[in-house]
Amino acid sequence: MDGHRLRTETQPTPPPRPAGAPPPTTITAVHLTPVLVADPPLLNVQGVHQPHTPRLIIEVTTAGGATGLGETYGDTVYLDLARPLADALIGRQVTELNTLPLLAAEVCGDSPAATGAEDVTAGGLRGVRTADKLRLSVLSGFEVACLDAWGRHAGLPVHALLGGKVRDHVEYSAYLFYRWAAHPGGRGEPDDWGAALDPPGIVTQARRFRDTYGFRSFKLKGGVFEPAQEIAAIRALAAAFPGHPLRLDPNGAWSVPTSLHVARELDDVLEYLEDPTSTTAHMAEVASRTDLPLATNMCVTTFAEIREAFTRDAVQVVLADHHYWGGLRNTRELAAVCRTFGVALSMHSNTHLGISLAAMTHVAATVPDLAYACDTHYPWQTEDVLTERLTFRDGRLPVSDTPGLGVTLDRDRLAALHARWLADDGTLRDRDDAAAMRAADPGWVVPQVPRW
Amino acid sequence: MDGHRLRTETQPTPPPRPAGAPPPTTITAVHLTPVLVADPPLLNVQGVHQPHTPRLIIEVTTAGGATGLGETYGDTVYLDLARPLADALIGRQVTELNTLPLLAAEVCGDSPAATGAEDVTAGGLRGVRTADKLRLSVLSGFEVACLDAWGRHAGLPVHALLGGKVRDHVEYSAYLFYRWAAHPGGRGEPDDWGAALDPPGIVTQARRFRDTYGFRSFKLKGGVFEPAQEIAAIRALAAAFPGHPLRLDPNGAWSVPTSLHVARELDDVLEYLEDPTSTTAHMAEVASRTDLPLATNMCVTTFAEIREAFTRDAVQVVLADHHYWGGLRNTRELAAVCRTFGVALSMHSNTHLGISLAAMTHVAATVPDLAYACDTHYPWQTEDVLTERLTFRDGRLPVSDTPGLGVTLDRDRLAALHARWLADDGTLRDRDDAAAMRAADPGWVVPQVPRW
Repeated sequence: MDGHRLRTETQPTPPPRPAGAPPPTTITAVHLTPVLVADPPLLNVQGVHQPHTPRLIIEVTTAGGATGLGETYGDTVYLDLARPLADALIGRQVTELNTLPLLAAEVCGDSPAATGAEDVTAGGLRGVRTADKLRLSVLSGFEVACLDAWGRHAGLPVHALLGGKVRDHVEYSAYLFYRWAAHPGGRGEPDDWGAALDPPGIVTQARRFRDTYGFRSFKLKGGVFEPAQEIAAIRALAAAFPGHPLRLDPNGAWSVPTSLHVARELDDVLEYLEDPTSTTAHMAEVASRTDLPLATNMCVTTFAEIREAFTRDAVQVVLADHHYWGGLRNTRELAAVCRTFGVALSMHSNTHLGISLAAMTHVAATVPDLAYACDTHYPWQTEDVLTERLTFRDGRLPVSDTPGLGVTLDRDRLAALHARWLADDGTLRDRDDAAAMRAADPGWVVPQVPRW
Repeated sequence: MDGHRLRTETQPTPPPRPAGAPPPTTITAVHLTPVLVADPPLLNVQGVHQPHTPRLIIEVTTAGGATGLGETYGDTVYLDLARPLADALIGRQVTELNTLPLLAAEVCGDSPAATGAEDVTAGGLRGVRTADKLRLSVLSGFEVACLDAWGRHAGLPVHALLGGKVRDHVEYSAYLFYRWAAHPGGRGEPDDWGAALDPPGIVTQARRFRDTYGFRSFKLKGGVFEPAQEIAAIRALAAAFPGHPLRLDPNGAWSVPTSLHVARELDDVLEYLEDPTSTTAHMAEVASRTDLPLATNMCVTTFAEIREAFTRDAVQVVLADHHYWGGLRNTRELAAVCRTFGVALSMHSNTHLGISLAAMTHVAATVPDLAYACDTHYPWQTEDVLTERLTFRDGRLPVSDTPGLGVTLDRDRLAALHARWLADDGTLRDRDDAAAMRAADPGWVVPQVPRW
């Protein structure tokens, strides 16, 4: 300010590159590896988790020798979209992320998976399934892999590529499930959690989560038993862990009156009620008659669904999921939209491995106004494709400052889980919680909502 | 997909760094250089542009030897905020952008400039001035400088740091002004544009803009003469340039009835009407009674103002300005909010130099749904601090792919414009269009709005 001191220009010289050689951030190879991962018999409104669940592991390799990792849904419909997108990425830069949606629409636009999906309205746990949602879920895995490769190349953690962390740890919640001790017929990998089918079972499960990982917040996946029993489970948790944040998520299984009844019964102990009822209209009706915040990862899962929901004040917390929303950068944009409209943000999880958990942690670290502990299924996953599992302490994960996501692929483990996928006769390659339930209850059909 | 091929891990090794040395992206110096830049006698509702207008040039230098450039408002109130922020940046990484607002609030929070500003409600051309707005405008210059330094260091253009360009050119509009031939009393730098104070004068000005730069869209700064004359000017433009997009911006000078009258008179030739009236409530009233889209850079200039305006459908186009909104990344978040709510996006400009024009072009290149040609004052600025001015062809600027912003500081020119700032007795260091008007019309006071 005190006059201008003349200085020599000392811009760094770009690294030398042979004439005609592609930039080091050029994508030279993309490997897709579908895997089947052990999943415990966790119950929900649709049925029960399969013994193994499909995930897709994505590796993006650059001319500079960096390999970035991504992870997303591994069902056939996603794989069918991922293949052409993987091919189309070759020769692009890992930094070219804004055009990924256009590219995905271009190369996946007329795939049977994408076009047929518009009609898939069966619901399931992530609301109506559309071609757009499928594409966004697929490209989210590629976006994360590109960011990981870029970060490794640049020597920067992924959070830095998103503008930098605003916190050093990200808090997660314990994800409590009604569950059986084992999958029917002895399928899948055994674990020692035992059954949890009543309030004492849920409290025991919560205690183990807290003792092992230090979680402070507890979320119960509901919609499994009649509301009175789930209310009793939350009451038991509140008694066992006074002052701890609690949540209940029946995945839209309740009518508006039932939702309001549960809200009245539990509004002194819940921090929010998650998707008590289906559709934005019903959520708006519930929201207008309770002070308990409503959270969602069902009626607001795309940008197109926001306007109506926010204008009607149907939801007070959006549970972001970078797989749904098209990546970490879109998740940040979602956070901006929520912030602008006074809607809180936290994070949803579906069954996932450590690559996705690392990605969730990086983006969560960059969002200033993360209001609640994030959800994660990760503690239920005993298998992973990493050399080292991510470890929760005090209910939190540290935000990695090493380049990229900060996780390393274990090729032996990846090969083993891929071998399981190869060996599968097709029955588990597409997650179907209702089909899994029919292994125990042959007459099971997904209940119509509202179920109660 | 066809089985997993084992490969050797070939992650690139990070560049060698002496033990204890800071990362190359560490900020080691920040230079602030206020300048006074020639500005023609352009008329608006407040008065007339000063002969020289203050801007602040920011240089951020890193341990790796990159220097990034930023530019923002240069008035005293901004300089007072910029100084402590510049000091606080030393030792940080150029990638640490998400925490810039926190840092700015921390170091500028109790400055007299920031706290006093809450009471400044005089309006002016950018709506109510608040401490938040001032801070965001200041930090936007630092954000751009950090991105420029990061890009130079990484060998990546700024647009790549924002996720990559979605277009190779950004279209700008011709910014037409009522103007005098020269500043009163022979102050300032002369130019050869001559006066433009009636419809033929505006058409002549537009023709020169089109012939010199190829602009297709024309925006007239209104609020200077009574509406009938400005309607006549737009009609003259429509006759001279049939089919070309036209806009009129009286900076909120009109009442609701006058706004509706002008909208009716011009709805067949305007692509939008910009800030016809002041306040969101009045804009909403106008919007509810015309099909002509309303644009704004006055009633929506912060995220806090969006909710009401969008919920009431008060504006159909937001004119973003990275100076107002806190930088290029916030501008992208604004774009996401607008996209989500079906509101169009284009770009506002105040008097600025080439650094800001380059920054505008980079961010505009990354926004998929830029609906209209962006505004820029740049053709009116005959002076710059760059070695090479940016050049419009066919009304567009190419998007630079060279590292950083792609512009180079001319230290001699910077020194000369800084010397002018040093030599100023204080009268021009704070832009005041009403004071400048009083040089011609001693009794001038800023008109109360609505003026008509």
